[in-house]
Amino acid sequence: MIAKVGIIMGSKSDLPVMQDAADILKQFGVEFEINVVSAHRTPEKMYTYAKEAYSRGIKVIIAGAGGAAHLPGMVAAISSVPVIGVPVKSSNSIDGWDSILSILQMPNGVPVATVALNAAKNAGILAAQILASADDELMQKIINYKEELRLHVEKNSII
Amino acid sequence: MIAKVGIIMGSKSDLPVMQDAADILKQFGVEFEINVVSAHRTPEKMYTYAKEAYSRGIKVIIAGAGGAAHLPGMVAAISSVPVIGVPVKSSNSIDGWDSILSILQMPNGVPVATVALNAAKNAGILAAQILASADDELMQKIINYKEELRLHVEKNSII
Amino acid sequence: MIAKVGIIMGSKSDLPVMQDAADILKQFGVEFEINVVSAHRTPEKMYTYAKEAYSRGIKVIIAGAGGAAHLPGMVAAISSVPVIGVPVKSSNSIDGWDSILSILQMPNGVPVATVALNAAKNAGILAAQILASADDELMQKIINYKEELRLHVEKNSII
Amino acid sequence: MIAKVGIIMGSKSDLPVMQDAADILKQFGVEFEINVVSAHRTPEKMYTYAKEAYSRGIKVIIAGAGGAAHLPGMVAAISSVPVIGVPVKSSNSIDGWDSILSILQMPNGVPVATVALNAAKNAGILAAQILASADDELMQKIINYKEELRLHVEKNSII
Amino acid sequence: MIAKVGIIMGSKSDLPVMQDAADILKQFGVEFEINVVSAHRTPEKMYTYAKEAYSRGIKVIIAGAGGAAHLPGMVAAISSVPVIGVPVKSSNSIDGWDSILSILQMPNGVPVATVALNAAKNAGILAAQILASADDELMQKIINYKEELRLHVEKNSII
Amino acid sequence: MIAKVGIIMGSKSDLPVMQDAADILKQFGVEFEINVVSAHRTPEKMYTYAKEAYSRGIKVIIAGAGGAAHLPGMVAAISSVPVIGVPVKSSNSIDGWDSILSILQMPNGVPVATVALNAAKNAGILAAQILASADDELMQKIINYKEELRLHVEKNSII
Amino acid sequence: MIAKVGIIMGSKSDLPVMQDAADILKQFGVEFEINVVSAHRTPEKMYTYAKEAYSRGIKVIIAGAGGAAHLPGMVAAISSVPVIGVPVKSSNSIDGWDSILSILQMPNGVPVATVALNAAKNAGILAAQILASADDELMQKIINYKEELRLHVEKNSII
Amino acid sequence: MIAKVGIIMGSKSDLPVMQDAADILKQFGVEFEINVVSAHRTPEKMYTYAKEAYSRGIKVIIAGAGGAAHLPGMVAAISSVPVIGVPVKSSNSIDGWDSILSILQMPNGVPVATVALNAAKNAGILAAQILASADDELMQKIINYKEELRLHVEKNSII
Repeated sequence: MIAKVGIIMGSKSDLPVMQDAADILKQFGVEFEINVVSAHRTPEKMYTYAKEAYSRGIKVIIAGAGGAAHLPGMVAAISSVPVIGVPVKSSNSIDGWDSILSILQMPNGVPVATVALNAAKNAGILAAQILASADDELMQKIINYKEELRLHVEKNSII
Repeated sequence: MIAKVGIIMGSKSDLPVMQDAADILKQFGVEFEINVVSAHRTPEKMYTYAKEAYSRGIKVIIAGAGGAAHLPGMVAAISSVPVIGVPVKSSNSIDGWDSILSILQMPNGVPVATVALNAAKNAGILAAQILASADDELMQKIINYKEELRLHVEKNSII
Repeated sequence: MIAKVGIIMGSKSDLPVMQDAADILKQFGVEFEINVVSAHRTPEKMYTYAKEAYSRGIKVIIAGAGGAAHLPGMVAAISSVPVIGVPVKSSNSIDGWDSILSILQMPNGVPVATVALNAAKNAGILAAQILASADDELMQKIINYKEELRLHVEKNSII
Repeated sequence: MIAKVGIIMGSKSDLPVMQDAADILKQFGVEFEINVVSAHRTPEKMYTYAKEAYSRGIKVIIAGAGGAAHLPGMVAAISSVPVIGVPVKSSNSIDGWDSILSILQMPNGVPVATVALNAAKNAGILAAQILASADDELMQKIINYKEELRLHVEKNSII
Repeated sequence: MIAKVGIIMGSKSDLPVMQDAADILKQFGVEFEINVVSAHRTPEKMYTYAKEAYSRGIKVIIAGAGGAAHLPGMVAAISSVPVIGVPVKSSNSIDGWDSILSILQMPNGVPVATVALNAAKNAGILAAQILASADDELMQKIINYKEELRLHVEKNSII
Repeated sequence: MIAKVGIIMGSKSDLPVMQDAADILKQFGVEFEINVVSAHRTPEKMYTYAKEAYSRGIKVIIAGAGGAAHLPGMVAAISSVPVIGVPVKSSNSIDGWDSILSILQMPNGVPVATVALNAAKNAGILAAQILASADDELMQKIINYKEELRLHVEKNSII
Repeated sequence: MIAKVGIIMGSKSDLPVMQDAADILKQFGVEFEINVVSAHRTPEKMYTYAKEAYSRGIKVIIAGAGGAAHLPGMVAAISSVPVIGVPVKSSNSIDGWDSILSILQMPNGVPVATVALNAAKNAGILAAQILASADDELMQKIINYKEELRLHVEKNSII
Repeated sequence: MIAKVGIIMGSKSDLPVMQDAADILKQFGVEFEINVVSAHRTPEKMYTYAKEAYSRGIKVIIAGAGGAAHLPGMVAAISSVPVIGVPVKSSNSIDGWDSILSILQMPNGVPVATVALNAAKNAGILAAQILASADDELMQKIINYKEELRLHVEKNSII
């Protein structure tokens, strides 16, 4: 099967956070691939990845990075597919503020769909929602997932 | 034509910012609708809007709000379609930090695709990118748009 | 006895913080109830809770939530009883700033009485003070409590 | 008529902000009084004000202050009636952060019901809600007010 | 001997931080006293302490407090002697920002000499410097202390 | 007359702020001198100024600076007299945060008595309080000044 | 003459800030070139610029950008010459915090020499200092410039 | 061999951070020296160090400091060689914000090349890049280092 979602991260050390995106996509039955692609240490690989993603069949890119997090924005600059940015609170981060602002505050013309700090799970859900905008079966899975969320909270609401 | 993108905002005073989303969608030829829907002042209308959006054919919701901005997150809680949040720097905002954090920091299970402060134009582009994930013609328009951005910068790069 | 104070929280994981509100209300002899009600995961339950609170006899609502904390503000939007918001420093919070600003910065017309980060105890005291505005006996208990605070500090002031 | 709500502020320069609290209380038909009481420049007057408020019939105190805003917290320390704090963005304030944190972050035992920056109107509404917890007629006015808010937004929602 | 420096703190839990002020004053041979005086829990004691300090012979007050730290500013409002404020990073503090801003941002007319977060040692040194402005022998001790600092750094500068 | 208070600032552009210190000292009848001394542009002059201040009879130094404000801390490193730091919100400052933190967060051993942003008036009052710790006549003037503050607020408290 | 310093900026709108770098380099007699190169809108041009800079004789790159400012970091990722980053407070910036953190917080291996917000003049001086490390004549000009700074401050220090 | 890079730090406790600068310079074969020089505790030594650095053959100074970090800026004020500042997150720091702003926000005329929080390794690389601007052999080592970074990321990119 061809991957529809490309999960990339600036460093293998981001994997414990980014794995959540993969897990929820697997749960939704969405094909994905994972790669380490660093804007700062492998800029050519990053360029090639972003340039070829669409023609390889990638519909959504999820990019996680910490500190001065340039990966999501640079990939969004090069590719035309929607890019979801996950600010990662890495060890050299200033409480995550640097990651958040570096990913969120993109200039006009080049949006990045930013999710909460370390919220790779939400990035996976958002990617599924994007694919579901043209896939009623997948949308039904998302509706079911939300219903399960509700039931889980209600079941755990006895105090 | 049935609107594919629903643009909503908490107050008519957000329109000068949110108009940018409408303008860029018009440029891309994407059908949209605009409404004032306040999470805090019209909660029932907000609930109904979010609950019915998908069945009415809305594929993406763009929600702008300022201060303690609950509209994007509440709509994302109720609807299954992807929600793009635009933090608006309203007059009662603390430099926009309140709007940004209220929209961005959603809990697991309920993502909001947050764009930069006041970046309604980017919200419109992101909505088009989402629709383009299943519409090659629209994707081509986005690719052309990026090319025009490039040409515009290059034409204006003589100093 | 009918509960006069409704304590709600977005997730059962907020209970260690929110328990303080219950404990101090018990100490003041004020009837209360506790529920898990999530704005984002159980929006209908939240709506129903807020809509019916007043007619069920609830005089004050204490709502705790973390991150993009929409519960206090949404309940205040729907109900006419005073709502006390407790910003909870949850694990996915940015040092609590997101919770504080999401609860505090409500727009004109829909106030939330915000207390300090994790200060569920103060939320309980404030709820008692509100009820005491029409209950001299309860007010006397609050006056006594403040006197005990004073004595406690003075007893522990020998260095 | 005896005032039920006492509005105080640290300086007459806070009046343009604090007037909103008076205006909304007048609209609800709630008796109030306004005074300039400075924690830092008239500490004895502040002490006397807080000490006597309850016996004078004051049910709720609204205190506004800017910068290192000690007035709401000090009054809450001395009086047993609920105190609503309004952080004022005064000229010497650091974007309002100092006022907000000085009012919000009260220690256990001494709550201040904090509203948004400059949100004196919300302070007035909250005071009315507190009084309405034992006054069904006033509660009905608040319910009507919320309904008017809804109608106003809906009337202004045609774009 | 009559104490010349009064060290006060809002809670006995601040003692581990505030002890540093006492230790350095002892080292300089300056008489001091320590008390727990809470602006919020013992406001009358705080008032009396501040009102009588000067006539009791106190020349400088060192006041430490955390969170919404009102003690230094309130004592400075009541007394005419110089007040040194120590922002304490207490458990309920937001990284110390609340303590710092509550102490530092005093209005015109009522200064507090603020030192760094938790810097009770520096508060002690500053108190000694203030007393030394009219005590050449004490000034010589401070000059010697600075010389020892220099020697200590130089001795520990071999890497 | 020999100056007892030395007012220095990093740039003549800080004078509109720092003049307040001079004005209040004049009102108290305290001798002072004003100089432009830049830590970054005239480091030798700064060193000489700090080194000789005490022997020239200076009892207190008031130092104002903006941005990465090193002047107060460096003078405190070199001189043994108490140094009061005034964070100036200069044009290249980030809302004053840089000035505040550069002056306030001094290491152990080298305190700077920091006052609020732009609060040169309070720096002047604090300098007078320091001198008054050994000058009963001056202390009486400060007590009178505080009394006038009180009367001024009370006279302006009719609304 | 071959340019030794390459000044680049993300948008022509940054020119009023970045011109200061050019002006001071001209004053030092250092050859430079100015270009508009956007990481987000002209990523290929940016890549080519960075890749070829060293072989074209560029010794230092000065890169200015606002918001999510990726230009300095991306150029530093691709080129081996030292890169000086100028955070620009653009209109869509959050008080400059986004620009500063996006440029400063680079990961290990890829430094950017960051200067103060809008401090393009300092970027120019730093570039000259870097070139002067192997050019005694230029170093003498920098020494003279510092001497002029000193004289200018001293001449303007009469108050 | 004469040291070309001078590494200094305000306190020996900064060594665990600053050692990274020494390690990477050793790897590049660049001669360096390390010293403890405190702007606040050994101001004369600091002055002498900065004044003599250039004539002793030092081409670049790397200065690390925490809290109100004045060392990099003061050395840059006195010396004409480029100064790289490393903000150190010391124990008394406010999440590093104080160190960053104290080093970064230097006034016009006196730049400090600031790197990320605790990023002494990047300071070392930057120093090497500066020296390499006139040393092709060293530049080749830096190019090789970047290539190794790339290979290391790629080797570790299998997930």
